[in-house]
Amino acid sequence: MTVRFAARVDRVRPSAIRELLRLGEDPEVVSFGGGYPDPALFPVDELRAIFDDLLTPANSRVLQYAGSTGLLRLREQVADRLTADGTACTAEDLLITSGGQQGLDLVAKLVLDPGDTVITEDPTFLGALIAFNPMEPTYAPVRIDGNGMDTEDLERVLADSPRARMIYTVPDFQNPTGVTMSLPRRRRLIELANEHDLLVVEDTPYRSLRFEGDHLPTLRSLDTQGRVVHLGSFSKILAPGFRLGWLLADGEVLQKLSLLKLAGDTQCSTLTMAAASAYLDRYDIDAHIATIVAAYRRKRDLALSVLDERMPAGVRHTAPEGGLFTWLTFPDGVDTAALMQDVLLPQGKVAYVPGATFFPVAGPASHARVNFSGLPDDVLVAGLTRMSELVGAHLSGSGPSNK
Amino acid sequence: MTVRFAARVDRVRPSAIRELLRLGEDPEVVSFGGGYPDPALFPVDELRAIFDDLLTPANSRVLQYAGSTGLLRLREQVADRLTADGTACTAEDLLITSGGQQGLDLVAKLVLDPGDTVITEDPTFLGALIAFNPMEPTYAPVRIDGNGMDTEDLERVLADSPRARMIYTVPDFQNPTGVTMSLPRRRRLIELANEHDLLVVEDTPYRSLRFEGDHLPTLRSLDTQGRVVHLGSFSKILAPGFRLGWLLADGEVLQKLSLLKLAGDTQCSTLTMAAASAYLDRYDIDAHIATIVAAYRRKRDLALSVLDERMPAGVRHTAPEGGLFTWLTFPDGVDTAALMQDVLLPQGKVAYVPGATFFPVAGPASHARVNFSGLPDDVLVAGLTRMSELVGAHLSGSGPSNK
Repeated sequence: MTVRFAARVDRVRPSAIRELLRLGEDPEVVSFGGGYPDPALFPVDELRAIFDDLLTPANSRVLQYAGSTGLLRLREQVADRLTADGTACTAEDLLITSGGQQGLDLVAKLVLDPGDTVITEDPTFLGALIAFNPMEPTYAPVRIDGNGMDTEDLERVLADSPRARMIYTVPDFQNPTGVTMSLPRRRRLIELANEHDLLVVEDTPYRSLRFEGDHLPTLRSLDTQGRVVHLGSFSKILAPGFRLGWLLADGEVLQKLSLLKLAGDTQCSTLTMAAASAYLDRYDIDAHIATIVAAYRRKRDLALSVLDERMPAGVRHTAPEGGLFTWLTFPDGVDTAALMQDVLLPQGKVAYVPGATFFPVAGPASHARVNFSGLPDDVLVAGLTRMSELVGAHLSGSGPSNK
Repeated sequence: MTVRFAARVDRVRPSAIRELLRLGEDPEVVSFGGGYPDPALFPVDELRAIFDDLLTPANSRVLQYAGSTGLLRLREQVADRLTADGTACTAEDLLITSGGQQGLDLVAKLVLDPGDTVITEDPTFLGALIAFNPMEPTYAPVRIDGNGMDTEDLERVLADSPRARMIYTVPDFQNPTGVTMSLPRRRRLIELANEHDLLVVEDTPYRSLRFEGDHLPTLRSLDTQGRVVHLGSFSKILAPGFRLGWLLADGEVLQKLSLLKLAGDTQCSTLTMAAASAYLDRYDIDAHIATIVAAYRRKRDLALSVLDERMPAGVRHTAPEGGLFTWLTFPDGVDTAALMQDVLLPQGKVAYVPGATFFPVAGPASHARVNFSGLPDDVLVAGLTRMSELVGAHLSGSGPSNK
């Protein structure tokens, strides 16, 4: 048959992340490509105890349908945690989503007609581009530096974007760069959003994973006009295999997003919602997060020290204060995709994510994203050492004099 | 702020099902409104044993990310079951979805541009309309009778639908009517789809729940051109709270749908996929389904006997050979929404789904959908008796002579 696909399907193409999720399944490759948490940190024993208590004949409702906005008790618990974090809200302001990714799909459906513009950091989270693309937007990328999205550049970009519909940002330990938006820029971003009457989508999957430095207020807590849709996730603090996140929004926006959730998949898994809720009731998730933070801080320190000691001087990296990633900048002219394909994979069985894929419109080929959270310490160190040595050999052997 | 919603949001409105899911939470109301399985039939003890075995430190991958198409072992098991049912396929032809509902969202995204036409039964599954609406289609409904979608009417409708993009059907124990499409009509539907080069979406959540009569071949098994997208679900045979279904499609169609799945929510819950797979490995799901079928056959018999004995003669019902629903037809002029609001809820604390909501364009107000699967036998009989008596009193008291 000849299938006539919808126009939006032109924007749906295989992505680097998809291929890398596959690479991650090859046990021989040491992949720094995924955004995987360390499975050794999952609270497996606690969760086994929880499922053992949940799954009784008297409690079979955990296997039944539930409301599309998510279990009330879980929404109350998330609201309490957000409020304690300075972002005041109640269960009625929240929708439980299938991970943070579904929140992105829902906001794209909510505001994007074909040709509308999304303002993003440059580079930005690839999963967000993948989620937004089916709604056929254009992108207006904004410069990012060590203090996050550059609000002077944002001002300029907004002036040139008459069809801007939302500003998408990962303010804390951004994916892919690892940088955090400063407080003055957070305030300025909200001012600009107010001036231009725009929705802001604040994506915070890594927010709890701060290794050092000051905890900054969320954009949502700085917003007095109900224009920030705040997205969060249990993937990095409990388990990605649960597929649970949350979405905080005001009134009509939340109501429409909840209807789009119902349309898309009825509801999240009652069972994983009940288990997450029971975990929050019975265990101290802040203590669990502190354990994760200590482990990832150590992994970051290990990763950065290998990079500092072993990478050639021309390869720079960011120094993230939290989260899962550091961002490498190679000398101009290095194509990190070719480097990985031709050298790192065949000679070293190591992988990162080539940076070009994170630029919404076009960007240099000389970056790479390295995850430091998903691997055991020894594998992390051995893999990055191998990568650094291969890069060193390649750069010294393929310098300008050889071209 | 003023949110400028996308045009598609005009098509996203609160639904009767949403309100009824809420009604179902009021413990005082006996609701025949949902499509709920009987929670007493969930294999809770077996699932507790499975989670107890799955959740060990050595097996923490069940809490980690996995590929977006779904666990390979689960796809193999579903492929084996479909093949045994006469629908030959392999794991590579399948995508695991978040219930059947997500399959509908994905196919809508795949083929529908605004203004394109979906051919449906008249009435049809409300959840499908809710899933399709955000892609802004028009609907061309086709008459349905005791043998399912009327293919003579389908031929006429297709001739009048130049922008038809897909035929959506629930061939087995249709929602809301409970009727099953005959074999000659299945063959004819495929012929017509071939003639018009259309995608067919075959939605089979109730297919395994046959109480009597011949098991008919799926549309997918009659399709030689790869034009049927076949949707199935674990909700009615295992547990809706798992949020797991499957989608079977050919080559490029499956590839694009898998990319849309990745864009929408990354993947289904690794944990519930692993649990469903372990259930299929360790237990005899066919024996479990036989238990469900025996229970729902008994409940159908109870429901129909109450309706036969207690409902006024002017109220007819279908006699489904399987599934969860019977469809009531009241005398002309009866508005079942008003009847429920004014009489059945206040006086009897009983609810159904008023029929008007299932007609994609417009339909009579004199139908209602009654679910017989979700309630204990005694509650089912007492509730339907109360409903029948109230209807009897209302119809005799509000007949033409009183108007």
